[in-house]
Amino acid sequence: MPQQERPFDLLNKVLGQKVLIKLKGGAQIRGSLSSFDIHMNLVLQDAEELDDGQLRTKMGTILLRGGNILYISPA
Amino acid sequence: MPQQERPFDLLNKVLGQKVLIKLKGGAQIRGSLSSFDIHMNLVLQDAEELDDGQLRTKMGTILLRGGNILYISPA
Amino acid sequence: MPQQERPFDLLNKVLGQKVLIKLKGGAQIRGSLSSFDIHMNLVLQDAEELDDGQLRTKMGTILLRGGNILYISPA
Amino acid sequence: MPQQERPFDLLNKVLGQKVLIKLKGGAQIRGSLSSFDIHMNLVLQDAEELDDGQLRTKMGTILLRGGNILYISPA
Amino acid sequence: MPQQERPFDLLNKVLGQKVLIKLKGGAQIRGSLSSFDIHMNLVLQDAEELDDGQLRTKMGTILLRGGNILYISPA
Amino acid sequence: MPQQERPFDLLNKVLGQKVLIKLKGGAQIRGSLSSFDIHMNLVLQDAEELDDGQLRTKMGTILLRGGNILYISPA
Amino acid sequence: MPQQERPFDLLNKVLGQKVLIKLKGGAQIRGSLSSFDIHMNLVLQDAEELDDGQLRTKMGTILLRGGNILYISPA
Repeated sequence: MPQQERPFDLLNKVLGQKVLIKLKGGAQIRGSLSSFDIHMNLVLQDAEELDDGQLRTKMGTILLRGGNILYISPA
Repeated sequence: MPQQERPFDLLNKVLGQKVLIKLKGGAQIRGSLSSFDIHMNLVLQDAEELDDGQLRTKMGTILLRGGNILYISPA
Repeated sequence: MPQQERPFDLLNKVLGQKVLIKLKGGAQIRGSLSSFDIHMNLVLQDAEELDDGQLRTKMGTILLRGGNILYISPA
Repeated sequence: MPQQERPFDLLNKVLGQKVLIKLKGGAQIRGSLSSFDIHMNLVLQDAEELDDGQLRTKMGTILLRGGNILYISPA
Repeated sequence: MPQQERPFDLLNKVLGQKVLIKLKGGAQIRGSLSSFDIHMNLVLQDAEELDDGQLRTKMGTILLRGGNILYISPA
Repeated sequence: MPQQERPFDLLNKVLGQKVLIKLKGGAQIRGSLSSFDIHMNLVLQDAEELDDGQLRTKMGTILLRGGNILYISPA
Repeated sequence: MPQQERPFDLLNKVLGQKVLIKLKGGAQIRGSLSSFDIHMNLVLQDAEELDDGQLRTKMGTILLRGGNILYISPA
């Protein structure tokens, strides 16, 4: 089965939409994806840090380093 | 014994099929592999996070960073 | 949706402004961003280390290595 | 004493044979080596996860990321 | 706001002055910065290891590997 | 004082001899060094895993990834 | 203040002399520096592992991987 898309295509598709990010160490961040680069550095708008799915801190805009991201999921 | 395939050939073969991923730190993710790249970044569809083999969270589509993957197994 | 900005553009925009940095291991540093480079090494002025959002140590100027940064948020 | 072989020659020699892999974090995987690449990514067939030498989970085919491997030993 | 300096300029400016270094794992080293390179490897003179800001060990000259540095602050 | 040898020369000199390896995480492996490469990947023959200097497991031939080695000492 | 030396110059200067090495994870090694390379891999002669400054194990010659070194101090 030939591959029609690559992983970064998913990031392009969800620009402007809510995503949930899980970081190494377990922190979870939810926000609206506004930009990314080839290192998977991401900028989120209206970001919030979650604790077991519950809101913990509102953070507004945030720049996440790609190297510490475990996964990204459209929320 | 000459090697007829390389590890990435396995990913090509299981495109569209269920895989189980184990991440550094112990998290397990199961889903249908829809794309990958040379860094072993993966996109899964209908992804679920498992806890000791039991369903913990349904996550839909998910992009996993290759660098934090321990192993990938067709499920 | 085409991407109009890249993550590093956020750093350019907040030069001279207060940012909150979270490091691997959990330390939080707040200060005024005065410079950065492509490795996301940052210099902050009037920096303070925080403990659960409370001031712990005043540090003045500080150079943070990019590799250990989890995220950066305009404060 | 001149060196007649290099470490990767061992992988070539044990293709098709049982190997025991120890990963960072302590997990042990046993299986039949079917392919590898220059990053030491490996594919095992009939793989099993072991716990202190005891069988814990049968996993069939598995792709292990080289970067998280501590050692590989023909079993 | 254009950036007039880069993070490494701070190291140049504080050559010969006291700096406080925090390492991954929490160790703190204070000393007089006598040299650095592009990996942020540093040499300090009259270095001391601190424990919660208290002197623990006098070490004289010390070469610190850049990769394990969290931050550097003129003391 | 000019340097007459480089660290890898030690590996060349002890080919065929017993060495003790300490890995990140604390595991100790002893065996006879039969090959190495520029990443410090090593193959040992008649390898044994030690626990506080006591024999724990005999492993025969073993390939150790260089990246996880803390030190190597002729035994 | 122009920099007259670089960090590796310190290693050149202390060839043949006693140094104290601190590794990630906390292990301390003391010995006589006999060689180093650009990765900061080091060979020590008459090396000893220390525990809180007390002798724990005599190891003779030892090759330390640069990547796991926190700091090096002439002893």
